[in-house]
Formats: sequence, C-alpha cells, structure tokens
Amino acid sequence: MSSRIDEANREALERVLKSRPVLKTIAIARDVIPGMDENTLLHAGPPITWDRMSGPVRGAVIGALLLEGRASTPEEAAELAASGKIRFDSCHHHQAVGPMAGLISPSMPVYVVENETYGNRAYATLNEGYGKVLRYGAYDEEVLNRLRWMANTMAPVLKAAIEAVGGIDLKAMMAQAIHMGDEGHNRNKAGSALFLRALAGAIARNAPDAETAAQVLEFMAGNELTFLNPVMAACKATMDAAHGIEGSTMVTAMARNGTDFGIRVSGLGDRWFTAPSKVPDGLYFPGFGPEHANPDVGDSTITETAGIGGFAMAAAPAIVQFIGGTPEMALEATHEMYEITLGENEAFGIPHLNFRGTPTGIDIRKVVETGIVPRINTGIAHKEPGIGQIGAGLVQPPMECFIQAVEAMAEALG
Amino acid sequence: MSSRIDEANREALERVLKSRPVLKTIAIARDVIPGMDENTLLHAGPPITWDRMSGPVRGAVIGALLLEGRASTPEEAAELAASGKIRFDSCHHHQAVGPMAGLISPSMPVYVVENETYGNRAYATLNEGYGKVLRYGAYDEEVLNRLRWMANTMAPVLKAAIEAVGGIDLKAMMAQAIHMGDEGHNRNKAGSALFLRALAGAIARNAPDAETAAQVLEFMAGNELTFLNPVMAACKATMDAAHGIEGSTMVTAMARNGTDFGIRVSGLGDRWFTAPSKVPDGLYFPGFGPEHANPDVGDSTITETAGIGGFAMAAAPAIVQFIGGTPEMALEATHEMYEITLGENEAFGIPHLNFRGTPTGIDIRKVVETGIVPRINTGIAHKEPGIGQIGAGLVQPPMECFIQAVEAMAEALG
Repeated sequence: MSSRIDEANREALERVLKSRPVLKTIAIARDVIPGMDENTLLHAGPPITWDRMSGPVRGAVIGALLLEGRASTPEEAAELAASGKIRFDSCHHHQAVGPMAGLISPSMPVYVVENETYGNRAYATLNEGYGKVLRYGAYDEEVLNRLRWMANTMAPVLKAAIEAVGGIDLKAMMAQAIHMGDEGHNRNKAGSALFLRALAGAIARNAPDAETAAQVLEFMAGNELTFLNPVMAACKATMDAAHGIEGSTMVTAMARNGTDFGIRVSGLGDRWFTAPSKVPDGLYFPGFGPEHANPDVGDSTITETAGIGGFAMAAAPAIVQFIGGTPEMALEATHEMYEITLGENEAFGIPHLNFRGTPTGIDIRKVVETGIVPRINTGIAHKEPGIGQIGAGLVQPPMECFIQAVEAMAEALG
Repeated sequence: MSSRIDEANREALERVLKSRPVLKTIAIARDVIPGMDENTLLHAGPPITWDRMSGPVRGAVIGALLLEGRASTPEEAAELAASGKIRFDSCHHHQAVGPMAGLISPSMPVYVVENETYGNRAYATLNEGYGKVLRYGAYDEEVLNRLRWMANTMAPVLKAAIEAVGGIDLKAMMAQAIHMGDEGHNRNKAGSALFLRALAGAIARNAPDAETAAQVLEFMAGNELTFLNPVMAACKATMDAAHGIEGSTMVTAMARNGTDFGIRVSGLGDRWFTAPSKVPDGLYFPGFGPEHANPDVGDSTITETAGIGGFAMAAAPAIVQFIGGTPEMALEATHEMYEITLGENEAFGIPHLNFRGTPTGIDIRKVVETGIVPRINTGIAHKEPGIGQIGAGLVQPPMECFIQAVEAMAEALG
C-alpha cells in the first residue's frame, strides 16, 4: 500500500513541479468564475454559514452586498445575508482564492491565471492595499469607493496592459522574487515591484489618459501586496492540477474561514478536514494585542501549500522585522518543512541554502508521523468587522485536520 | 600618534554614517559639474593621458567626441583626442563618478545628488543598459543614438519626475535594496525596481505623451543597472564628505582608469596612490575569456569604498550566479571585510547577519597589517574598444596602493 501511495505522490508532486501558471488577463468574476451568479458570494476557507462567520468575514459580506447594490445600509445587508437568499460558498470550490475574508462578489474584477502545462485556470481578486480594506472586514464608503475605482478604472487599464505584454509568467517572477527576499505570502515587496516593472510601460500606453496611468501606477507602487493575489492564483492553479490523484496523501489546499481551518488532500476528493482556527502569534500594531485578534482567516495559505510563504522563510530573512523572530529562526523554519514535504521545487531556489529548492508538497503522513505542522505566515485581522489588520505573525494549523485526513485515507485504501 | 589617527578616523567614519545622499534632479553636465567646459572630458579612475588609455576608455572618448559633434569619424575623433586640445580629467576631481570608462562629456545629462547632511553634491551619468554601450568603449550609431535619446527624451522626463516626487532618499532606497538581495554594485536589480516604482506615476504624469512615458518606463524596466549610477553618486557624495580630515587613514576613493588602480585617503589630500590595474577573475559570457579582458576599469568601486558592493556580498547571495562562487563565499567576503574597516553602517543592515551593518570605512593601516585587500565586484570589459561587456567577477586591488598610502601617512605625520 505504501508503494501505491508513493507512486501517487510522485505523480502529484510532479504535477506541482511541472505546472507553469501564467497571468493571462483580468475579467469580471461573474463572467469567468464557474458557478458564480448574482446571488453567490465566495469566501475564504472551507464552507461556512452566516451564523458561524467571524466578525471580519461578516464585515466583508456586508461590504460586498453594499458594493453590489443589494443593500443600502449595513443593517439591510446583514439582514439579507441572514435571509438565506444569498448562497455562500468557498472560493476553493470555484477555482478561486482570496486573501483574509476572501470575498468575491459577482461584479469584482479578478486575475485570470492559466496553468499552461495542464490547462486549468484559477482566479483571484485585485489587492486593495493596507489599512481599512474589505478583506479585513471594513466596509465604509472609503473602502467601497476604492473598490469601485479599482473595478471601473484600474482593472481595465491593468487588463489591457497584461494582454499587451502577452501575459506574465508568474512562476518565473515568483522565482526572481524569492531571490530578492520575498517568501510570497507576507512579504511580496520584490514581487510587487517586479510586477509593476513588467507592466509600467504598457499601463502608460494603454491608460485612457496620463492622469489615470499615473494613478494606477501610484496605487500599485504604494501597495507591496499587489503581487500577493496573482501569486495566490498561481499557487491555486498549481495545486488544482495536482488534486484528485487517487492514493495521494499530498495536501492540495489549506484554508481558513476565520472560524475553521480546513485542508484538502489530493487523493481524498473534495472533502475538507476541519478543526477550529487558532489565533496567530506575532507582532501587533500599536494599541492592539491578542485579545483583539480574530482566529486565523484567508486562502493565502495556498502559498504554503504550494511550497512558498512560511516554507520559503529562509529566502526572506528581512520578514522577521514584520512578523517577529530572528533570521536564524527563518532558516530553521524552512529546514523543518523539508521533513514534512515530498520534494523540493528547484524553480524556487533559496540563495542562502545554495539555491536548494523550497520544500514542496505537504504529506499528511509525514505531518502526523513527525508531529510537525506546516509553518504558516499570516496577517492578523481584528475580530470586529470594519477595523482591519492589527498585526502579522505565525499560525499553527490544527494537527486534528491532518489526523482526520490520515484516517480517511486509511479507510479509503481499505 | 595612534590616538590622533583614531580620533581622525572616528570623525571620518561618523561623516560617512551621518551622510544622507538625496537625488535632487537631473541637469546637463556643463551646467552643473564644477570645472567642466566644452573641451573637457571626464573619465573614470585616477588621471591618465590619451597615450596610456586602454581600448575601452579610448573607445568611449571617441564616442563622446562623436556625440559632442567634435569629430565626424572615429579616426578624426582619435586624432583630436591625441592632439592635446582636449583636457582629460578624472571624474573624481569634479565631484563626479562614472561606471567603467566613466566618460562624461559636456552635453550629457547627469544625476544631481546632494548630501543633505553636509551640503556637498555629486554627479553621475544615466545608465545606458547592457551590451554595446559607451561605458564599455562602444561608439557605433546605435550607441550614439541611444545616448541622444537618453539626453533629449528620457532625461527631461526623469528630471521632471524626480522633482515632482520631491527627490529620492537614496540612502533609504539602498537600505531597502540591500534587504532585497542587492549589493549595490554588480547587482542592482531590487534597487532599480524600487527606483522605477518610486518614479513611475510621476513619469506617466510628466511625459509629453503616453508613448514617451511608455518608452522611458520600458527602458528603465529593461535595465537592472538603472540604479547603479544614482548609487554611485550617493556613495561619492558620502565619501567626499569624509575626505580631507587630517590624520585620517580612511580610504575615500578607489577607482580604475583601465590602466591604473588608484586610491585616495581622507588625510592625504588630493593625491592618488596608484599601481597597475589587474584583470578580474570571474564568469565570462560565451565565446570570451581572460585573454579578451581589459584590466579592471571604472569608478564603481566607490560602492565598496562606501561599504556596499563587494563588502555587502552577504546580503546578495544570488549574485554568485553572475560572478561565480557560492553563497557561503559571499558570507565569508563580508566577514573578511569587517577586519579591514573602521566600523559598520547600521543603515545598511544585512538580514542574514541578523541585520548587522555593512563593513564600512577601509583603513589603509588594517589592509597593510592584515594583508587583506578590499573585496571588489566588477564587470569585465573587452580590451578592444567597441565590443562591450564580456563577463563579471571579482578583482583584487593592488596592495602597493595601500602600502604607498601608509608610507605617505607616516611621512605626513612625521
């Protein structure tokens, strides 16, 4: 049985390593995301109902309903959300991913990423920047106006620019960013600068006027998380290609909805293995502490699932200034992840480890055997809606998810 | 005597560490560089006459005379250069620095960098990119047309953009780039992306039309050495502020003219201590080898003089793919440089060394005592004019320069 699993895992890992995610264009969610309709709202993590949603996810739902014109006050929006008329579903069920609350509503523009090796696609929204933003559950006029500007002004320009440059090879750009101190999850400073660099000329050429070009460029220049969302879609397109291989014990998704932490496994179909999401450990912004923190939330753990983020910490020592710890601990984090993964991604070489590839392909068996859970970098959301990010740090996925999955695999394989 | 030197060195180092170079604008060389006139050509390194110039420097002189309209053929230009009618002088004698041949002719646009702490200024040309370029001695029509476009089209847009953003704090940007895997000499990939990011919006807003904005942005995006020249001017503005402190044994300039390697020392006035320049060790582009290489050339060693470049190798492990060696050797290079320097620049923290500052302020006494010469990263020029870069690697400055300087200091101090 072990050799049958090993063979399945070899194939699953190979599909991860051979994937080539390319950013093709930007489109409107309702036009491209399978199964998306006017009454659907997608959210991060495993499926969850309104009554169990945490503050920031509820805030983002309220904001999305206001944005869509389905309600005119937050109270109306909350009432509609609770009415049963809105279908909530996981981004992951629709080839999509979203950071933090991960809300995708029908009118939002999304990046369209294609895995050119296997032909599958993945989608992610455009990053809103810092502070009070929808993904942290904020929904005031400033937040909604920014989203409107992004949809009406920025997205068409970016779409034209992306198409004008013939798409962006995200895997190659991520590899460069890892050589430049990014880990691709909490730190996307280099990647965001490279992304801007790749598009700047085409943005100037394709904007309706100079002022619009300048505003789009300045918005991107001011947001070092610009590249996070394309990276997440790239990781999703990669891991989806490795999903559904019978007998494989490789994790293909880790995601949190702010209440539950869930994982999916290549050989275990569409089932989620869930347990309560924990509060991250990390550095808090002034005036905030763990008592204000929401349990961990977001689909951005797709980065760790694909072998970057916390797994590539050794490439990103400067991140410890943001999430706490020392550069030595960053090296150790990556070294530890080699113990629970199936292989290494040579495309993502870590310079300080002599270009050794990042640890890639979490094996649920190794997690349970070693007792080592995946290392996850994360942002920390305030537990009340409408406030936003209050820190950044590390979070431990619950071991129960991996134990459940191992048990399910044992059952499946008889 | 030793305590008198130590005190002078403390002051010299303090001036380096307290310097704050800011890019203020772009201007035409003849309008801003002190002592520049229509018959002056500035070059890299210590002073040198036409008859002793190496191939790439001669090629750059020929190109500059063609560019200035002082000759209509390369032969005419060479004749004029040999006639005695052109005054050749070191960039360093005019508050300026130039990479490789380092040619600055009167009509060229230059970055204007001000050391806001001490009020002195420094100048450097705009980087031309790779391949056949003037700084490697190429002078065909393609090279000259590019320089004309840079002067007539790019420079005015960049000037307006730099002024529109209120200047650029180069020290802060260099610090960020060092956190992103640059060492600031051979690797300026992160810095160039950050520089583009800082100016992109203002370029779009200030260009005469969208196509010009796009072309300027694309030129900068295609050149990962864009940031080298502002960095060099920043280092020059920093080291000039520490020059002229009686009794100080700190090196304030290291520079090569392609024939001689020269250094200047804070307490030893304007004198150069020179010895023959060596051929770098490194990786050659396909089809080239050491037999094609010119002796080391350029003012870019001002980066190492200021404590980055080869001294910051530990921050830039990915550079070994370009210049040879291993990431381990990169760490060792920085560790070794702590042995010959007066202090550490906390502004330039190296993440993998737990943010320890780069080794800064070369002490000629320590070099002679330890036998350790400064570590220099460099590009390799073909020895014939007009060909260009053929590799990149490391070069050893001649120990004789440091011995001469120590002897001169002993004499000066009685």
